[in-house]
Amino acid sequence: MIGGGNDAFIGAIHRHAANMDGKIELVCGALSINKDIAIESGRSLFLPEDRIYTSFEEMLEKEAALPEDKRMDFVTIVTPNFAHFAPAMMALEKGFHVVIEKPITLSLEEAIALDQKVQETGLILCLTHTYTGYPLVKEARKMIQDGKIGKVRKVYVEYTQGWLSRLTERESAGAAWRTDPKKSGKSGVMGDIGTHAFNLAEYISGLEVTELCSSLNVVVENRALDDDGAVLLKFNSGATGVLMATQIAAGEENNLKIRIYGELGGIEWHQQEPNSLIIKWLDKPMETYRAGTGYLSDIGRQNTRTPGGHPEGYLEAFANIYRNFAATLAARIDGSSVNSDVVEFPSVREGIRGMAFIENVVKSNESTEKWVKYEI
Amino acid sequence: MIGGGNDAFIGAIHRHAANMDGKIELVCGALSINKDIAIESGRSLFLPEDRIYTSFEEMLEKEAALPEDKRMDFVTIVTPNFAHFAPAMMALEKGFHVVIEKPITLSLEEAIALDQKVQETGLILCLTHTYTGYPLVKEARKMIQDGKIGKVRKVYVEYTQGWLSRLTERESAGAAWRTDPKKSGKSGVMGDIGTHAFNLAEYISGLEVTELCSSLNVVVENRALDDDGAVLLKFNSGATGVLMATQIAAGEENNLKIRIYGELGGIEWHQQEPNSLIIKWLDKPMETYRAGTGYLSDIGRQNTRTPGGHPEGYLEAFANIYRNFAATLAARIDGSSVNSDVVEFPSVREGIRGMAFIENVVKSNESTEKWVKYEI
Amino acid sequence: MIGGGNDAFIGAIHRHAANMDGKIELVCGALSINKDIAIESGRSLFLPEDRIYTSFEEMLEKEAALPEDKRMDFVTIVTPNFAHFAPAMMALEKGFHVVIEKPITLSLEEAIALDQKVQETGLILCLTHTYTGYPLVKEARKMIQDGKIGKVRKVYVEYTQGWLSRLTERESAGAAWRTDPKKSGKSGVMGDIGTHAFNLAEYISGLEVTELCSSLNVVVENRALDDDGAVLLKFNSGATGVLMATQIAAGEENNLKIRIYGELGGIEWHQQEPNSLIIKWLDKPMETYRAGTGYLSDIGRQNTRTPGGHPEGYLEAFANIYRNFAATLAARIDGSSVNSDVVEFPSVREGIRGMAFIENVVKSNESTEKWVKYEI
Amino acid sequence: MIGGGNDAFIGAIHRHAANMDGKIELVCGALSINKDIAIESGRSLFLPEDRIYTSFEEMLEKEAALPEDKRMDFVTIVTPNFAHFAPAMMALEKGFHVVIEKPITLSLEEAIALDQKVQETGLILCLTHTYTGYPLVKEARKMIQDGKIGKVRKVYVEYTQGWLSRLTERESAGAAWRTDPKKSGKSGVMGDIGTHAFNLAEYISGLEVTELCSSLNVVVENRALDDDGAVLLKFNSGATGVLMATQIAAGEENNLKIRIYGELGGIEWHQQEPNSLIIKWLDKPMETYRAGTGYLSDIGRQNTRTPGGHPEGYLEAFANIYRNFAATLAARIDGSSVNSDVVEFPSVREGIRGMAFIENVVKSNESTEKWVKYEI
Repeated sequence: MIGGGNDAFIGAIHRHAANMDGKIELVCGALSINKDIAIESGRSLFLPEDRIYTSFEEMLEKEAALPEDKRMDFVTIVTPNFAHFAPAMMALEKGFHVVIEKPITLSLEEAIALDQKVQETGLILCLTHTYTGYPLVKEARKMIQDGKIGKVRKVYVEYTQGWLSRLTERESAGAAWRTDPKKSGKSGVMGDIGTHAFNLAEYISGLEVTELCSSLNVVVENRALDDDGAVLLKFNSGATGVLMATQIAAGEENNLKIRIYGELGGIEWHQQEPNSLIIKWLDKPMETYRAGTGYLSDIGRQNTRTPGGHPEGYLEAFANIYRNFAATLAARIDGSSVNSDVVEFPSVREGIRGMAFIENVVKSNESTEKWVKYEI
Repeated sequence: MIGGGNDAFIGAIHRHAANMDGKIELVCGALSINKDIAIESGRSLFLPEDRIYTSFEEMLEKEAALPEDKRMDFVTIVTPNFAHFAPAMMALEKGFHVVIEKPITLSLEEAIALDQKVQETGLILCLTHTYTGYPLVKEARKMIQDGKIGKVRKVYVEYTQGWLSRLTERESAGAAWRTDPKKSGKSGVMGDIGTHAFNLAEYISGLEVTELCSSLNVVVENRALDDDGAVLLKFNSGATGVLMATQIAAGEENNLKIRIYGELGGIEWHQQEPNSLIIKWLDKPMETYRAGTGYLSDIGRQNTRTPGGHPEGYLEAFANIYRNFAATLAARIDGSSVNSDVVEFPSVREGIRGMAFIENVVKSNESTEKWVKYEI
Repeated sequence: MIGGGNDAFIGAIHRHAANMDGKIELVCGALSINKDIAIESGRSLFLPEDRIYTSFEEMLEKEAALPEDKRMDFVTIVTPNFAHFAPAMMALEKGFHVVIEKPITLSLEEAIALDQKVQETGLILCLTHTYTGYPLVKEARKMIQDGKIGKVRKVYVEYTQGWLSRLTERESAGAAWRTDPKKSGKSGVMGDIGTHAFNLAEYISGLEVTELCSSLNVVVENRALDDDGAVLLKFNSGATGVLMATQIAAGEENNLKIRIYGELGGIEWHQQEPNSLIIKWLDKPMETYRAGTGYLSDIGRQNTRTPGGHPEGYLEAFANIYRNFAATLAARIDGSSVNSDVVEFPSVREGIRGMAFIENVVKSNESTEKWVKYEI
Repeated sequence: MIGGGNDAFIGAIHRHAANMDGKIELVCGALSINKDIAIESGRSLFLPEDRIYTSFEEMLEKEAALPEDKRMDFVTIVTPNFAHFAPAMMALEKGFHVVIEKPITLSLEEAIALDQKVQETGLILCLTHTYTGYPLVKEARKMIQDGKIGKVRKVYVEYTQGWLSRLTERESAGAAWRTDPKKSGKSGVMGDIGTHAFNLAEYISGLEVTELCSSLNVVVENRALDDDGAVLLKFNSGATGVLMATQIAAGEENNLKIRIYGELGGIEWHQQEPNSLIIKWLDKPMETYRAGTGYLSDIGRQNTRTPGGHPEGYLEAFANIYRNFAATLAARIDGSSVNSDVVEFPSVREGIRGMAFIENVVKSNESTEKWVKYEI
């Protein structure tokens, strides 16, 4: 693991997720650029002293030098956005598979470079777009693929949070990383959560955005980057959509919701109650599909651990990404194969589309033209 | 009543609503332009034969000629949109107060003309924008007025229906009134339901839209008017919003929802579960206000009939408009007064803003500029 | 109307319900035993002076003496429980059809006497057990009748309220009517709301209780009658059930819920969200039936006024009872007929079963034996 | 781990839960009484060959013989009910701390014997009553302890499942363990899920049951043990309650719900939506407490891993029990201490009360007396 020291949040989430199924073991780490934190963190995670590294370069060098059966199988990168690209490139160059926290990189350019390296090396890159790990998200995608709701006409996706309703001390301090576009990217709200909404919309609908019209706002005074926005969408099939993302919706927690309507019915899924998938039909009663039940399709059933009524949540969705990645990697190692329709996870393609989304939204926001082409 | 014969839908709704509280009695009607239907409808409503009229002109003439204590007190107009203006003007000219089904007229121009006549005559005009009749809608408005959630930052309002998911026979018939802008107005979805969403947003937030960016779609092939659309909004206070209205969301019934976020919290109300008003707070647990309870403010309490847990619905909301109108009219007649903060109803102002909304949305839709000024 | 003066609650509810559909007109009343209130109330309801009566005896005498086309068609009795029997008997004797607020009488004995008089006279008696007026309650009954969920196995019904969580001033005053079993009946909570739960369970399930085991509690100190209780139930089919009724569930409003499970699935209905009926299936996704939709059966569709998504509530359920009664009465008057499978309302049978329920629950509560036979 | 081979369900759940926080490592196992399954399971869990045991006796002997820093710290017992007692006693005798899947033993007698051994040895025994591991269950308990809803008056707890709605092949086969009271215990539904409901009720309310009146049913023909039941409860404080447990509620998944009413308000929690805790108040709006938020008390906040809106579920609740047990054990090992108000888990006391509950429910069911004393 690169990043994820005791002072970081997302690293712990990755460890919970990777641990859960007993298929992945943390064997080494460069857990912080602060040497003391790196060492202390490694110890608290029961790492052997000689595999607690103090820089990613050191780790990648030394691990690559170990005999094949002793060295790590893959590396997880959980550093801040601006520090994804360098370790990911180096890891690929040294022959390690890579898991990266989203967003994949700081810019579209970097994402494209990473893609080329992945194609060149044939290694596996997994991008932890958590929300596509939920079983009922996968079930929804399958239903639409199978034509259950007919041709898709409308997509509404929204991601509302309230935790940036006030300017925090950290932000108001001049040097906060949020104020530095070199560290945070070109959009605040769209980079942080808008990309999740975008990814979810494309993943479930099976469509691709082709044009957009966005409006971004800095709602909280003195904030350096936008904290709110909305985007009108056009998809390649002729369907249209609306994407709303905000971090100033006081009182909201992590309210990612999606609704997709086709000719025959609509699906609705709420991340905060992820074990229900609502299907509304034109001519018959609404149905609620539940996680863990026997009537789901393969992809829905195999991405759970517990039977219906034993709620799974965010960490299990996250763990599904790790579990599917690990199964894919294990198959690669032992020369077998997995059913990639069911055992799947986001990769560099999703990373590129997400980075392009951010860049196009920013471009549209700055334009007086209504519609901007989505370009990569 | 003008319009509302046995073959019409909305007339019956008006009668349910007007009847409910026992303060209004139907005394005469020109219920259809079809003479037979007019007569048959009048009889089935127990009207005396001599007050069943076969044209609105006849009715207004004859009623105006009756002695003051015998003639009707006001007229309700429930004809199709294009037939609102003429009877309304004539009624005002003859000295009758008027209730009109929404939208107030076919065009903004007509609405403005009606406004001038209302001001000139001093008569009361009530526009039945039903959804503002709900007690918890009124409570929400009051909470925002009182600053409970702080300065408003964001408004999301949506109105999704699915009943136009298919082209109906009536529509596909060449001559259907929907295909004729002279009868239906300039926008399908925005005229029919978008205006409700707009009205609700302005009513609860207390703000006014100043700029907008819209996109309208004809989703169902061969439909003559738009059946889907979305609008980005800017308000006079600096707040922003998104309005979504669609009639092709297969499986949706009459799903009008609004969320408004301020600095301290957000309110959320769903028309399909109208007896709950959700308040999410930045730093404390979410609250659910319930209709009919003692902790509501005056306006919330006085616009119900039943105690908490005895659900009131659409007809009661509609009846609140009639009840408040009737109380205001009764006070006018006997020279007393009502507390117009509590006993209130939509009027010609809301009609004008709604007509201007439609016209500006259509204008924006046709423009390649992102933002269009909301102009009256 | 007998009872229901300006100082009473339930009379107004009856008038809202009776007014709503424009088929019933209030023509006379003995609205209070207090002469001043009777007169003032009659005037405020726009009754003609000569039909404002000051006792039910006077009203029934004088109305019976009017020519047939001038006198009232039926009488509604909305007095307190102990004052139901006498006016109902007299009305029947005078040849008037009767609507009675529930509970039908003060004792089972009286209910049986009323039944005999109804059978003797052939007149119509309608008991306003409101909750069976909801369209989705009727739909649920129909589904079970049609065997959709298979043979019924389990019934859970509960009615929780919180408004008696504190001893009110009125109660603590020595003379309050609640302390006087002659006025209030033998059980507080079971008489007031337990009977509704019981009625709903038998109505929807189509079963009859045959044995029961009850426990009643006086939770609030110094209260004269029980305010809480639970009953284990056995039904004639072999199914079992649990009935919970309480008025000391602080924070609850009017929370009547029922769940009935059969071999294939279960139905669930909540009075506070009456426009949804949940069907859970053994092997397929849960369904939500919605009021006002086209896929409902005749009885479900014909007991609404508005399309799906336009919520109807308590008053509409109440109005369905009046509307079905009025249609039945109108058919009787003009010699036609109605489809009594669809146009139905509770009558004296339900009254008798409810009174017997109260008496048997009280008997069981006083017994140390576990099971008591339900006897009439 | 004893039990939990590849052919078992609950063992995997325990491993997910124990793995999640990275504080517990599986080091050895006697995973099945079938030698082949034991070995294969051990390998698939990456255990070293020499610590894959084929009987619990072998494992406990050999691990006890290892040097202190090499041997396992505790043992988890996930065998069927009838095989809990022997390994637990032996483990305690050999000096190992113990985690046991619920129910603790097959009989109350065994539970008491285990208690004596725990007291004698001073070792830690943790009983995995999962549902008390949920953060909002802990928060609810804390609120009631702190008097927030006043003195408790009423407890409703229910646990409905539908998966036993049909007789399964396994059951209908004569030799199935369910038909053998020596293996399954004295009650089907109460042993399996009724004890969870009972445990939850006592845990949250802080009260103890003192008398009960039960009725158990065998609903599905030819089933050997009861699959449905209900119990009226009296608590030591004078409060009363109702407990419903069924496994024939077709369409229900794992629907454990509890409602507790006090003088001032009521709490409501649903296991299937575990991240919300509803508080209804007598005189003010209902509140919804959410997991992961800052306004919770210490115990609520410290038993989560993720911020509000990132749902945690059944496995996290389970993991909380392991995490709290592990923290307590680690403190014991290194001589420090934990705040046992916050870092707590069910133990042998809960096991004894649960076993006594089953025995008293069965006794009451067989009695014609209404009330039976709850006796240990």
